[in-house]
Amino acid sequence: MALYVQKFGGSSVADAECMQRVAQRVYDTKQEGHSVVVVLSAMGKTTDNLINLSKQVNPQPDEREMDMLLATGEQVSVSILAMALHALGAEAVSMTGPQAGIATDSAHTKAKIMSIEPARILENLEKGRIVIVCGFQGRSPTDDIATLGRGGSDTTAVALAAALKADRCQIFTDVDGVYTADPRIVKQASKLTTIAYDEMLELASLGAKVLQSRSVEFAKKYGVELEVLTSFDRIPGTVVKEEVEDMENIVVRGVAVDKNQAKVTIQRVPDRPGVAATLFKELAAANVNVDMIVQNVSEHGHTDISFTVPRDEINRTRATVDGLLESIGSAGATYDVDTAKVSIVGVGMRSHSGVAYKMFEALSAHKINVEMISTSEIKISVVIRSAYADQAMQVLHDAFDLDKINEQAS
Amino acid sequence: MALYVQKFGGSSVADAECMQRVAQRVYDTKQEGHSVVVVLSAMGKTTDNLINLSKQVNPQPDEREMDMLLATGEQVSVSILAMALHALGAEAVSMTGPQAGIATDSAHTKAKIMSIEPARILENLEKGRIVIVCGFQGRSPTDDIATLGRGGSDTTAVALAAALKADRCQIFTDVDGVYTADPRIVKQASKLTTIAYDEMLELASLGAKVLQSRSVEFAKKYGVELEVLTSFDRIPGTVVKEEVEDMENIVVRGVAVDKNQAKVTIQRVPDRPGVAATLFKELAAANVNVDMIVQNVSEHGHTDISFTVPRDEINRTRATVDGLLESIGSAGATYDVDTAKVSIVGVGMRSHSGVAYKMFEALSAHKINVEMISTSEIKISVVIRSAYADQAMQVLHDAFDLDKINEQAS
Repeated sequence: MALYVQKFGGSSVADAECMQRVAQRVYDTKQEGHSVVVVLSAMGKTTDNLINLSKQVNPQPDEREMDMLLATGEQVSVSILAMALHALGAEAVSMTGPQAGIATDSAHTKAKIMSIEPARILENLEKGRIVIVCGFQGRSPTDDIATLGRGGSDTTAVALAAALKADRCQIFTDVDGVYTADPRIVKQASKLTTIAYDEMLELASLGAKVLQSRSVEFAKKYGVELEVLTSFDRIPGTVVKEEVEDMENIVVRGVAVDKNQAKVTIQRVPDRPGVAATLFKELAAANVNVDMIVQNVSEHGHTDISFTVPRDEINRTRATVDGLLESIGSAGATYDVDTAKVSIVGVGMRSHSGVAYKMFEALSAHKINVEMISTSEIKISVVIRSAYADQAMQVLHDAFDLDKINEQAS
Repeated sequence: MALYVQKFGGSSVADAECMQRVAQRVYDTKQEGHSVVVVLSAMGKTTDNLINLSKQVNPQPDEREMDMLLATGEQVSVSILAMALHALGAEAVSMTGPQAGIATDSAHTKAKIMSIEPARILENLEKGRIVIVCGFQGRSPTDDIATLGRGGSDTTAVALAAALKADRCQIFTDVDGVYTADPRIVKQASKLTTIAYDEMLELASLGAKVLQSRSVEFAKKYGVELEVLTSFDRIPGTVVKEEVEDMENIVVRGVAVDKNQAKVTIQRVPDRPGVAATLFKELAAANVNVDMIVQNVSEHGHTDISFTVPRDEINRTRATVDGLLESIGSAGATYDVDTAKVSIVGVGMRSHSGVAYKMFEALSAHKINVEMISTSEIKISVVIRSAYADQAMQVLHDAFDLDKINEQAS
């Protein structure tokens, strides 16, 4: 007998019928002899509808009141699921975030969980009840309702799993696991059986929107084993867990593409200390999220600095950079929005050499030019023309035999 | 500078536009230099929609979960009004029932307010803020959300007014006050300037659905001055208050009709102790709400017992009574659903004689037959054929000159 935390997102609880399907799934887990804590998001479009309502009375609603408003979405979900479970003959009880003992800080609309006092949940589990908790919310130090921001239900689930020392935290969503590449682009993409936290974090930050980075970080920190799986089928998903030695047998576990990239190059910057610091300090002040940064070798006391930013931040970036060019002594800057970032990720890179070489060779064989390169211990990213993004993903998927990844796995 | 509690019902807060109108009204009261606590119901059809959703997953939803579900309706209202007030430049903060310090018993879906700890409200009023509280809900002893049942928002408003020692509790609704008769039936019906708690209670129990009886009882108990007024116009409403001597100058303050009445007559019941007790005990056990009871003079050891019940409870009544006839020794029973109850109400009846005579005479002059009579200190009710109900209301309104009531008032 194990303790499961099962989290169901908005599309899994879109309407009464979905709720009944979720209830059956939860009930089956309980019938198998396990204890179950369920975490729910708001039903379908509820959150969007509430936001629209708020905008009708105030274009810039107060954040504390916004939390008061949006928290109702999850409260509807949990009570409806409790009723659906009762209809199946199960004992179940719903709880708001505050009732479940979830304490947050005061940062309304983007609060962090500070602690969980799980006494009430444990007491109900001991009585054999299924406990259903509102995701995405908790009680602030001033006894207000604070929300964790969009996607915060995953974090609630992981935090509860950590506090309750659950055996597994299952994240039910509308995809059935984590794939070696986006299956809409790469037809032979394989579903991964397991993936390491760090790999998942790199993939999440690269735009593979299966899990929120914050919840993966939380899971890693507290050693919570996560499973990503679909609520629409009864098939195993992908387990995200601590890296084990076997995992390094797989050099590359996934290929990801981020098409929301723009490249900025500042030409002929004097090669003296403090120039880069000034530049990136000003960009941070303008709320620009700089991603990759590359500085070329200095020639005759001058260097070129290139970096990428999200494409929709290019106007803010241009305004900031153009205002700085003179003071940093640059000859000019170019802005290029036709770029994409393609990355390969795998913990096996740490112990295998020649991975970068193999990546560049594969791209070169298909005449895909690499404009920027950036590497971490378990990731290699390149910037290319956006027109080649999908092709590059396919090429790299083939080059690293990712269609056969589950045969390689031990 | 006074403290007002202002309660707005569902039709006053039906949509974003209504919310903005309510915000303006509340803001104006604040701008006049008063402190304001607002109590809100759920927006428009929200509660009905939530009930429908619950029925889709469970035909008999658990009451604790039902409260969890329905309480969200008011929470949406209060946060939206806070935002609308912010848009006008006002300082305002919303609170759930539990946050406002409203403690209830554990009777889910029909809880009673046990106490109010108004520290948080007072603290915010002192800071010059408008405080907006969810009607209809509070915190149960087990830290669950409990609702007061339909119409409970009026009770919340009155209870808060009592706890805060407010100068007046204004109940905004879709009618502009309490009338001498239903204005849809009696064209010359007059709006009352004032009415005594006891008169309002009799009228409420007679089906003049302006205020819930429970909130009037609460107001009477704690001496809270109530004003019923419309949220759609800026005109004075009707003040419900402690009876003062002057009020007795008006003998009859209102005429009410209840068409949801059925009459039962049990014939030739042996006139011995315990028969009526047996009968009404069984009806209570069958959940029948018996209203008027009349027992005729005994003839030769037998008597007839007549009573009225709500028309939609006649089947339950018939099943119970038919099962008892033999054991109580009755010859048989008749069931009549074509009846109505017409009542006149006024605290002046206590000090004026001849009121009943005047009533019967007026009805008789129009050939309206009186089938049953029941009286209290400040009310006379008669049962007549339902076909004459509206006519009887008009006749009595004329007989007691209720169209000129505001000229009679001191």
